[in-house]
Amino acid sequence: MQIVDFKAIAANYKVIFFDAFGVLKNYEGLLPGIENTFSWLQATGKEFYILTNDASRSPQELAESYYRAGAYAIAPDRIISSGMLAREYLDLKVNHGTVAYLGTASSAHYLETTGLKTLPISQVDLSDVADINALVLLDDEGFDWNVDLNKTVNLLRRRNIPVIVANTDDTYPVSKTRIAIAIGALGEMIETIVGKQFIRFGKPDAQLFMFAYERLEHLTLRNGRGNNGPVGKRDVLMVGDTLRTDILGGNKFGLDTVLVLTGNTQPQDAEIQIRSTGIIPTYVCESVVISE
Amino acid sequence: MQIVDFKAIAANYKVIFFDAFGVLKNYEGLLPGIENTFSWLQATGKEFYILTNDASRSPQELAESYYRAGAYAIAPDRIISSGMLAREYLDLKVNHGTVAYLGTASSAHYLETTGLKTLPISQVDLSDVADINALVLLDDEGFDWNVDLNKTVNLLRRRNIPVIVANTDDTYPVSKTRIAIAIGALGEMIETIVGKQFIRFGKPDAQLFMFAYERLEHLTLRNGRGNNGPVGKRDVLMVGDTLRTDILGGNKFGLDTVLVLTGNTQPQDAEIQIRSTGIIPTYVCESVVISE
Amino acid sequence: MQIVDFKAIAANYKVIFFDAFGVLKNYEGLLPGIENTFSWLQATGKEFYILTNDASRSPQELAESYYRAGAYAIAPDRIISSGMLAREYLDLKVNHGTVAYLGTASSAHYLETTGLKTLPISQVDLSDVADINALVLLDDEGFDWNVDLNKTVNLLRRRNIPVIVANTDDTYPVSKTRIAIAIGALGEMIETIVGKQFIRFGKPDAQLFMFAYERLEHLTLRNGRGNNGPVGKRDVLMVGDTLRTDILGGNKFGLDTVLVLTGNTQPQDAEIQIRSTGIIPTYVCESVVISE
Amino acid sequence: MQIVDFKAIAANYKVIFFDAFGVLKNYEGLLPGIENTFSWLQATGKEFYILTNDASRSPQELAESYYRAGAYAIAPDRIISSGMLAREYLDLKVNHGTVAYLGTASSAHYLETTGLKTLPISQVDLSDVADINALVLLDDEGFDWNVDLNKTVNLLRRRNIPVIVANTDDTYPVSKTRIAIAIGALGEMIETIVGKQFIRFGKPDAQLFMFAYERLEHLTLRNGRGNNGPVGKRDVLMVGDTLRTDILGGNKFGLDTVLVLTGNTQPQDAEIQIRSTGIIPTYVCESVVISE
Repeated sequence: MQIVDFKAIAANYKVIFFDAFGVLKNYEGLLPGIENTFSWLQATGKEFYILTNDASRSPQELAESYYRAGAYAIAPDRIISSGMLAREYLDLKVNHGTVAYLGTASSAHYLETTGLKTLPISQVDLSDVADINALVLLDDEGFDWNVDLNKTVNLLRRRNIPVIVANTDDTYPVSKTRIAIAIGALGEMIETIVGKQFIRFGKPDAQLFMFAYERLEHLTLRNGRGNNGPVGKRDVLMVGDTLRTDILGGNKFGLDTVLVLTGNTQPQDAEIQIRSTGIIPTYVCESVVISE
Repeated sequence: MQIVDFKAIAANYKVIFFDAFGVLKNYEGLLPGIENTFSWLQATGKEFYILTNDASRSPQELAESYYRAGAYAIAPDRIISSGMLAREYLDLKVNHGTVAYLGTASSAHYLETTGLKTLPISQVDLSDVADINALVLLDDEGFDWNVDLNKTVNLLRRRNIPVIVANTDDTYPVSKTRIAIAIGALGEMIETIVGKQFIRFGKPDAQLFMFAYERLEHLTLRNGRGNNGPVGKRDVLMVGDTLRTDILGGNKFGLDTVLVLTGNTQPQDAEIQIRSTGIIPTYVCESVVISE
Repeated sequence: MQIVDFKAIAANYKVIFFDAFGVLKNYEGLLPGIENTFSWLQATGKEFYILTNDASRSPQELAESYYRAGAYAIAPDRIISSGMLAREYLDLKVNHGTVAYLGTASSAHYLETTGLKTLPISQVDLSDVADINALVLLDDEGFDWNVDLNKTVNLLRRRNIPVIVANTDDTYPVSKTRIAIAIGALGEMIETIVGKQFIRFGKPDAQLFMFAYERLEHLTLRNGRGNNGPVGKRDVLMVGDTLRTDILGGNKFGLDTVLVLTGNTQPQDAEIQIRSTGIIPTYVCESVVISE
Repeated sequence: MQIVDFKAIAANYKVIFFDAFGVLKNYEGLLPGIENTFSWLQATGKEFYILTNDASRSPQELAESYYRAGAYAIAPDRIISSGMLAREYLDLKVNHGTVAYLGTASSAHYLETTGLKTLPISQVDLSDVADINALVLLDDEGFDWNVDLNKTVNLLRRRNIPVIVANTDDTYPVSKTRIAIAIGALGEMIETIVGKQFIRFGKPDAQLFMFAYERLEHLTLRNGRGNNGPVGKRDVLMVGDTLRTDILGGNKFGLDTVLVLTGNTQPQDAEIQIRSTGIIPTYVCESVVISE
């Protein structure tokens, strides 16, 4: 396994898709020096998007968190989250009534603009559920697992409604040595219990990549960079720290991929994991941080 | 699908194995008239055992709950629970140190006699886990899921120890219309997250049947009923309300099986479920209750 | 469950996506009267595409088979097959060398235009595999399962290469009462054995829907029908006979969906299957055949 | 991970259970020097049994193959195979009619003594299946996969009968570098396709261990070795080369376990596999071969 320099590789592409956690930031905040990477992207006229399975906050809130941390370059329209796919689904497929949810009030906030009423599971009255037309699993925080997971199972025995899981991750890191259970894992447990098929949004699924990819034509025209022809999949590089989401999804969508070693995949494990999973990144880089 | 009379079938066997929940009792207590069944068993000299995936209480406590409800016939030594297998495992395979557990203090009580120290996950200090040599998942009650399931995942990242799941059920009924998530489902979620192989005790696994079956020779001799030769598998009838645990396990162990329609399997669904799962009981009966 | 008239529903959409098998044709050929449906689509200026998990033949060959059967309306550019996604993947991600395959020579024929050499597994020499850079599973026919499935497993132990499964179906019908094992099921078995992650193309995956959807803008402009604005997901209706592929995929992509009862889903089973899987079509119709 | 001497460990037990393939023999035949191990077992009065997932031949045939290879000590009654459990199942649970099978005629031979008629799938007439009351999957050899696996699927759509898989292994080695697909993997594929629950016999399932364990009391008495009290689980050591079958099954049954490095588990992978699976052998030894 050869480790190559990120800047040398990225120079050959017009657009970079970044995973967020483990690539741009970790449990301590933004990676030191990451601002150099964004400066270089801007200086060289490269487009970039952040593709995240984090549905706990709106793109606005996510962008603010980057801004506060000093990454001024990351505007809300650069962030594509699995929560946005959940919102599009509700917008297209659920016409009226109430959407029940598991997650924080903040995570549900941007669902509200779909015109549907939102209701946390904790406030659902199981004897009066006829108005509930969808359930969205947004975040592992904001509810009492003992009470509300049981309530969720019983709601799904009474109402045959679509269930959207807006984050496919099983866990997320909370410190150098600890992880936490993510809503993706809770969703899988409930899906097994009720025996129904949930709708999952998030990498490696193609829909998140498509959502970002569809924005490229628009941006290219607006920026008027004089590219020769429209941007195609060969012009896009996907960068991630996780083989089973970022790299598998990027490969399948037809993009070249970079595995970085600053997150989920430890340097000493990378080669063995690539061999044992058969998920093969186009390149392996230590980090996306560019030294000045 | 032909529905036959339980008494007429049971008359042909020397020993009856009963599942508990859905067969002898439900969320409201013992089935009305169940005492007739036990009277008939005693009058006809039939042995019986109760095979339960309930590890939340000791056989003594379970027997007391039957006694309080009026089923005087059910002594502790008639009850075989998956918790007893967990205890035997610890006894044989874990020689010293501490056993962490998820469940009520009561469920952990009878593990203590193995000579090992028991400690609820809530009291585990993640920075001091060197003494913890096993983890047992006993019951869905008695702990804070938000906090303690995350703690469990992190414990298993630090210690490569055997994990015993003492109840393989995913859910259990709490009222006519509601169910609750059982420790079996929580265990599967954690197993998937940590990627390790847990040890499960409970039907349909053969070990619970074996535990009951091994007692038969002893009892036969003690009772001195003049059976012609030792009791064999052809003399035992397994009765349960769930195809995937009671009937699959009983069939595989080589026993004739009765599906009753007083629990998990609704009368209108029985035929379709038998056909779609391929789990075929020898007989189907409405109930084990015998009218006087 | 209400059964509605296909023509009345389809009248409200600009574009119809059809599954092929079980919707337009079955093991006996095209459904009698299906030409009326295509006449009506043309008369009313509706676009249509056929989305099929059949990778055993090229769109040209598939279109010819429709033509021979009397469906003159179905040009090759109306057919989107999972094989086309496999070909795009190879085109974008595999730059040189040989692609090994399982399937008929005919199924491999249109992979060849990618510039890569194709080689049936039967001709692979396991002692000389350094040049093999991808494996594609195309069809269950055209090879000796006893010999070539074992050879495939051993190839994947020697070469860590991407494996593309170009048909996600487990089975397909071959007569009124018999089915056959499809390459999707053989692929799952091999994936489990080698423990690697294969790349699957085909419904319910979003990429097949995206492939069809991307053609809509182009066609709309060419036809110049004076639509108000571009075609959006609300203008597209997905029609299929299988809940887990056609309907789940269509729903997730954001389309309205029709379940027809001429294929996999029997009329008497539809309601129970919808309830037990939680996969809910927008409409249920008997058939897409329109009586004149 | 400490590697210890097999003889020093085995000296502490009264009974040794051996896996066959990867422990006593490999694709080239018996391990050189294995006769020393059996001499030592006899000299020290230790009982031993061979627990194998190989259902392709009867214990008699298996014993003859050991004899021909020079291991004179291994009598048929020392061999416990998953095929014996399949036979016991048929004996107890299938009273009449025909048992269809996949496998060689030789593998079916010892099923015949159950009094049931046996019929290879190749000779089944799908229009006349009313007499077929069970299906047994015995061996990957002896039939045409293309034809007979499809026939098997269609048989199971017509007859709701128990299906017994007499070998849980997915693969077996055929040379230093090649493996072959075992009937266990073919069985899983068919089980998924037909959506039914098959009955599996073989490690890690407790029933194979139980079958061997039940023989111990009998042997102890016959041999009259003056053991203090009956043999218990603490007196038995299980030796195997595969974590997920031999070691997991032995541990769960309550036995001390030895992982040897002469088969499936390579010396350089043992530690990482133990850590990643959480399946922890009591001891790790290089080989069971004892140098004189």
